[in-house]
Amino acid sequence: MRRLFLALLASLPGFTGAATPRPPADLLITNGRVLTMNATREVIADGCIVIRGERILAVGPAALAAQYAPARTIDARGGIVMPGMVNAHTHLAMTVFRGLGDDVPDRLRRFIFPLERNFVDRAVVRDGTLLGLLELIEGGVTTFADMYYFEDEVARVTRQAGLRAVLGQTIVNFPAPDSPEPYGGLALARQFIAAYRDDPLITPAFAPHAPYTVDPRHLRLVAEASAELGAPVLIHLAEMTEEMTSIRRDHQMTPVEFLDSVGLLNRRLVAAHCIFVSESDQALLQAREVGIAHALVANLKSAKGVAPALRMFEQGLRVGLATDGPMSGNTLDLIGQLGYVAKVHKLDRKDRNVMPAATVVEMATLGGARALHLEDRIGSLEAGKLADVVIVDTSSTALQPLYDPYSALVYAASPRDVRTTIVHGRILMEDRVVRTLDAEAIKARLRELGARIQTTLAGGLR
Amino acid sequence: MRRLFLALLASLPGFTGAATPRPPADLLITNGRVLTMNATREVIADGCIVIRGERILAVGPAALAAQYAPARTIDARGGIVMPGMVNAHTHLAMTVFRGLGDDVPDRLRRFIFPLERNFVDRAVVRDGTLLGLLELIEGGVTTFADMYYFEDEVARVTRQAGLRAVLGQTIVNFPAPDSPEPYGGLALARQFIAAYRDDPLITPAFAPHAPYTVDPRHLRLVAEASAELGAPVLIHLAEMTEEMTSIRRDHQMTPVEFLDSVGLLNRRLVAAHCIFVSESDQALLQAREVGIAHALVANLKSAKGVAPALRMFEQGLRVGLATDGPMSGNTLDLIGQLGYVAKVHKLDRKDRNVMPAATVVEMATLGGARALHLEDRIGSLEAGKLADVVIVDTSSTALQPLYDPYSALVYAASPRDVRTTIVHGRILMEDRVVRTLDAEAIKARLRELGARIQTTLAGGLR
Repeated sequence: MRRLFLALLASLPGFTGAATPRPPADLLITNGRVLTMNATREVIADGCIVIRGERILAVGPAALAAQYAPARTIDARGGIVMPGMVNAHTHLAMTVFRGLGDDVPDRLRRFIFPLERNFVDRAVVRDGTLLGLLELIEGGVTTFADMYYFEDEVARVTRQAGLRAVLGQTIVNFPAPDSPEPYGGLALARQFIAAYRDDPLITPAFAPHAPYTVDPRHLRLVAEASAELGAPVLIHLAEMTEEMTSIRRDHQMTPVEFLDSVGLLNRRLVAAHCIFVSESDQALLQAREVGIAHALVANLKSAKGVAPALRMFEQGLRVGLATDGPMSGNTLDLIGQLGYVAKVHKLDRKDRNVMPAATVVEMATLGGARALHLEDRIGSLEAGKLADVVIVDTSSTALQPLYDPYSALVYAASPRDVRTTIVHGRILMEDRVVRTLDAEAIKARLRELGARIQTTLAGGLR
Repeated sequence: MRRLFLALLASLPGFTGAATPRPPADLLITNGRVLTMNATREVIADGCIVIRGERILAVGPAALAAQYAPARTIDARGGIVMPGMVNAHTHLAMTVFRGLGDDVPDRLRRFIFPLERNFVDRAVVRDGTLLGLLELIEGGVTTFADMYYFEDEVARVTRQAGLRAVLGQTIVNFPAPDSPEPYGGLALARQFIAAYRDDPLITPAFAPHAPYTVDPRHLRLVAEASAELGAPVLIHLAEMTEEMTSIRRDHQMTPVEFLDSVGLLNRRLVAAHCIFVSESDQALLQAREVGIAHALVANLKSAKGVAPALRMFEQGLRVGLATDGPMSGNTLDLIGQLGYVAKVHKLDRKDRNVMPAATVVEMATLGGARALHLEDRIGSLEAGKLADVVIVDTSSTALQPLYDPYSALVYAASPRDVRTTIVHGRILMEDRVVRTLDAEAIKARLRELGARIQTTLAGGLR
C-alpha cells in the first residue's frame, strides 16, 4: 500500500521528494567481488548485482544497491560473484557407472557399451541424471550440454532441477537402450525437439555419437534436419587415434573435413574434444563458427592427448570447458577442472606464463557460452543478460589470504566453496542447500543402484 | 576396581566365564572401508581399527570390535579409513604469499626471494605455518616435511597442532630472514636439531636449499653434520634447467652425481622434485636409498616437466607425493594432488592403464613414509605402527555410487571429504572440527597479513 502510494506520488509532475521511489528488483546480491566477464573483463572489488525476473537489471559498485527496492537481498559476505559456469559436454546419466572401468584399456567397447546395454533404461537415466544435476548445481554449473539416451527424460528432470541445458538425443549405428533399431535415435530426436522447441531453459538437439559410429548418410540426414529445425547438433570429434585412421582410410579426410563434407560444420555444431585438429582443421572450425568443448581432464585420464585449446582460444575460436561424462572424468563440476586447464597447458607449452587464471575462468564462463552459441544470453554478468549467477564462498582455509580472485578460483578453490547457484533468476541452491531437488533421496537411490550393478557385475556381463 | 577384579579372575587357571574381560583400548574406529596398505594391500570392506596410546593395536573385520573394551568409539559411517597421508615437501609458512606471482616468469628471483626479504620474520612464519597446519589437518595429511626459515618456530606450532613432521632449517648462500650472514642457517640448524632431538613427533633436519644455492664446501659440512647427528637432510634437487646447466658447467656432473660427490646422497636425504634424473641418476638414488618427494602439481604449474616418478616407483625407489609450498602449488592437501598424479602420468606415458588409483594412494601414504624413511613407524594401518589414521566421508554427491574406494579417492574425492584426522593416537580433527588449533582466529590473522602485504606491494618492493 505504501509502495503504491509512493509510486503514485512519484508519478506526479515535479515531484522531487527525498523518498523518491526506487525501481523494484526481485533479488539483490551485495558485498561480493564481482567477476563480470564483460567486454573489459571488469572486476568490481565490492560489487552488487540487481536481478528482476529472469534477467540481470544492473551490475555495479556497492552504492548501486541503494537505488533499488529489492524483494530479497543475498549478502555474498565478501565471496566471489561470477557468471554461472558452463559444462559444454557431458553424459550426466553415467553417474550410475562412475568409477567403473578406470585405469583399463579399450574402455568404450569393453566397458561402456556393455554396461549401457545391460543396465540403461529410462529409470536409470532419470536417477543418474538427477545425481548429475545435483552435482552441477552444487558445483556452480548453471548451463550444460548433454548427450545420452532417453534424452527427453534428461530434459524432464533438468526442468525440475531448474538448470539451463542444450540436450542432445543420441543417434548411433547400433541398437541403443532407447531404440531397438540402429539410428532409431533420429526419429526420437525429432520428437524430442518438437516437444521442447519453446522451452525457456532447454534447447533440444541432435546428438550423432561420432563420425565413426554414424554413417555418412545419417550424418547428412542429421545436418538437413538440424537446418530445417534450427536445432543444434552435439558430437564427439577428433578424439581418438582410431577415429583419425578410419576416417582417413575411408574418406581421405580429417574428421573435421569429413563433417564439413556432410554439411554438419556450422554455427549449430558443438564438437567435443577436438584433440587431433590440424591448423587447417582449426581454421575450418573457426570459419564455420563451431563450438568446441575442451574436456581436458577426461582426455588426460584416457591418455588421449592435450587438445590445442589454448591456440584455438587465442585465435578466437569458441572454446568452452567440459568434464565429459562421469565414467570419463568422474566429476561434473568445473572448478575441479580449472587447475588442470591452467597447469597442463603450461606444461604442454613449456611456459608458465600461458593460460593464466583469468583466461581459464573466461573459458569456464563466457567461453562455454560461446561454445554453445548462447553468448548473447549468458556467460557474463551484464545488464540484459539472463541471471545465471554463482556465489563462491572465500572463507575456506585454502583461500586465505586472497590476493587475486581468478588465482583463488583456479589454483585453490574447491567446488564445495560454491555457496549459491542462481539460474534464470531462480535460486537453485542457497547456502549449500539445493532447493529444487531432494539431495538425500537422490543419493540414496544411487547407492541402491550402485549396489545392484555391482552385484550383477560380479556375476559377469552378457 | 571391577576391571582389576575381572583381570584377576581371568588369570585363574581354568577360568572360562562368559564375561571374559576384554583388553582395554583408547579408541576404536568401526564401520569403515579400511585401506590397510599392508604387505598384501588388503582392503577390509567393513573393518575396524583398535588404538591404544599412540599405537595401532589391531586391524581387522568388524567382529574385532567386540574383543576390546574401548574408552571411545568413532563410527566411520561407511567412510574410507586409511593411513594418514604424507606431504613429503612443503614450505608451510608461504601460505602468506599464496596466489602471488602466479602465471609469471622468473618467479623465484623476481617474486619469492624479494617477498621473503621484505616480509618474512618469526611472527609471519608462525602465522603462515599455523594456516598451513590447519589446511594439512583438514585435508587428512598427518605427516609432512617442511623447509623454511625460523624452522624452530615451525616446530613449536607443529607441536601445538599435533602433526608429525620432518622439519628442515634452511641453509643458503645469501642473507636470509633468520640469518644476516650467508650460511647462518647451518648453526641455527645445529641448535634446532639439538633442541628437538628426542621429540616423539618432530624430526629436526638440515635443509640446504639446493645444489645451486649452497656451495660445495657447505654441502660437505652439512653432510658431515648430518652423519654426526644422525639428522635428515632436505633439499631441492634436479628441478630446473639452469640448475642442470650450471652444475654441468661447474662440476661436469648431474646434480644427483654432484650431491653424491659431496657425501649427501644417502639414507638420510629427502630430495624434492628430481625432475631431470637420468636412468643412472635413478640407479644412484636407489642404491643410496634417497627419499624422493614428487611435487607434480607444482612442477606442472611451473612448466618444469614431469618427473619420472612412475618409473622410479616401479623400480622400488622411495617415492612420495608433495605439494611444494603454497606459492608453487597453492594448496597443501594431498587428495587434491592424487588425480593429477594418476592422469598426468597416463598422458606422459600415453597409456591409460598406468598409474592406477591404488598406486597413487600408495604413493600418498606408504610411499611418503618411505620417502621420509619412516616406513617402520607410519604409512600403513598395521598392528604396532603409530596411529596416524584418516577417515574420509563418502556421502558427498561426487562419491555416489562408490564401486572402488581407491578410484573414489583419486578421481572424485575432495580434501573437504576428510572428516577425522588422528596423529599419534590423538584426534586432531573430528567431524571437520579441528581441536588443536583455533581455525577462525588463524584465518582472520592471515586475512590481516594478506591485506598488509597487498598494501605494501602496491607501493613497490625494495
